[in-house]
Amino acid sequence: MERRISGRTGMFCLIGTPVGHSGSPAMYNYSFQNKGLDYAYLAYDIPLEKTEEAVQALRVLGCKGFNVTMPCKTKVAELVDELSDAAKLIGACNTVVVKDGKLYGNNTDGMGFVRNLKENGVDVKGKKMTIMGAGGAATAVQVQSALDGAVKISIFNRDDEFYANAERTKAKIKEMLPECDVNVYHLEDTEKLYAEIKDSDILVNATKVGMKPLDEQSLVEDKSVFRPDLVVADVVYNPKETKFVKEAKEAGCKVAVGGIGMLLWQGAAAFKLFTGEDMPTDEVYELFFK
Amino acid sequence: MERRISGRTGMFCLIGTPVGHSGSPAMYNYSFQNKGLDYAYLAYDIPLEKTEEAVQALRVLGCKGFNVTMPCKTKVAELVDELSDAAKLIGACNTVVVKDGKLYGNNTDGMGFVRNLKENGVDVKGKKMTIMGAGGAATAVQVQSALDGAVKISIFNRDDEFYANAERTKAKIKEMLPECDVNVYHLEDTEKLYAEIKDSDILVNATKVGMKPLDEQSLVEDKSVFRPDLVVADVVYNPKETKFVKEAKEAGCKVAVGGIGMLLWQGAAAFKLFTGEDMPTDEVYELFFK
Repeated sequence: MERRISGRTGMFCLIGTPVGHSGSPAMYNYSFQNKGLDYAYLAYDIPLEKTEEAVQALRVLGCKGFNVTMPCKTKVAELVDELSDAAKLIGACNTVVVKDGKLYGNNTDGMGFVRNLKENGVDVKGKKMTIMGAGGAATAVQVQSALDGAVKISIFNRDDEFYANAERTKAKIKEMLPECDVNVYHLEDTEKLYAEIKDSDILVNATKVGMKPLDEQSLVEDKSVFRPDLVVADVVYNPKETKFVKEAKEAGCKVAVGGIGMLLWQGAAAFKLFTGEDMPTDEVYELFFK
Repeated sequence: MERRISGRTGMFCLIGTPVGHSGSPAMYNYSFQNKGLDYAYLAYDIPLEKTEEAVQALRVLGCKGFNVTMPCKTKVAELVDELSDAAKLIGACNTVVVKDGKLYGNNTDGMGFVRNLKENGVDVKGKKMTIMGAGGAATAVQVQSALDGAVKISIFNRDDEFYANAERTKAKIKEMLPECDVNVYHLEDTEKLYAEIKDSDILVNATKVGMKPLDEQSLVEDKSVFRPDLVVADVVYNPKETKFVKEAKEAGCKVAVGGIGMLLWQGAAAFKLFTGEDMPTDEVYELFFK
């Protein structure tokens, strides 16, 4: 590597906090090298209140593009020069491309979700989806699914501070994509949940339930909802197989996927935006996600 | 390398323009890796008018330290929080250490020169030196030699726009180091030049004469000044052996050294300031300077 970084090597990076544990530097640096691209990817620990200064800093240093993680995603969406439809609807950026000094904000989280389903033979187009959750990941999944042609989305969330998020997502999708029918329900209303799942094609857990230390939990207690043709997907990737996904598989669901693929493919989507090239996802998966 | 840069890897860099050709990223990245230090070194192309913004950018991103090349060295000396004596006297910074958010400006160019002589068995302490030139490198050599105990320095420069520089250096050294006797003469006065060389211990070319495309030239035409005990040194490192050094050797000077060692040791001095550790100079020389 000592000979890889030269005076001409371009910089990409991640901003947010904490970033020390992030796998992004390893994933992108490997991919740059694999593709023979003269870039390096670093991570900078940036608290929310320094987001604006950090974005300005990256402009000044000629950074080629950057990823954004918590807690800076929403703030960055306000700072860029142009937003993709997904980033606009989600109200958050996880990927910014710098071109001729202008910042183009994107959100590849939902793209990663949709692509992961596609890799598993499922297209969201024309489908009815039931999606549990209303936080950042959930919003990204809901928005991108609507953008990619889902016809009906039923959002379930607890009656907590995120519930209003779901209502906002519904309103925003209604305005930009009126052909997608979005409804919001209370997660406490399990009867309604099971009824919506019943005629859904795809059921998604986009909450933290199932993630360590909540890995003994699943929001779906009645396993009889897991029909063989119900596609089940989780955004949680730690553990790789959540209780939700495991039980769906055991109950006979033909497609039941965890969140690790979403993570891989959101990175691949950012890599494509950054470089115009395809990330070597097979190798990246083997090396860093297995 | 793909596994070397992680979310915790600290950033060092070079600013200035042009930086594309710089060997610094290779030298420092190799040394970090050799020493098992979790840092990466990049180069950012920064024009003079963006120096202040760039320094602020590096503060915001938590950069651990940076080198400065032309044309930003003088400006950076005005922007840091504290200056070393050498940087203050030279009026330019080539190395900035960031600690607890404060910037400490240094200049290791002269340190590299003095150390290179020491590696060749020569100490400037107590010596009389004749130094040709009054630009950035010359000033650094003059100031550091004075700081390190040279008792008499005769500066020769053409009657050009840099001549006033030499006068300023004389005044500054006189103020901070009155025990060092500095005099400034015109390089056109070859009689005076040869007279000063006659009782000097060390003769230095710190001009661009001898550097490509001036590699057929030397400022010393009368080779009879090259006594065996006259130490001859050049700051020019391209070509590795200048006409000046070559002729001094041929005339019997026991110590006649080119500028490549100065380049290596200024980097090693910066590495020490950055990391507290010794650069693996033997390996760096073999890999990048030979």
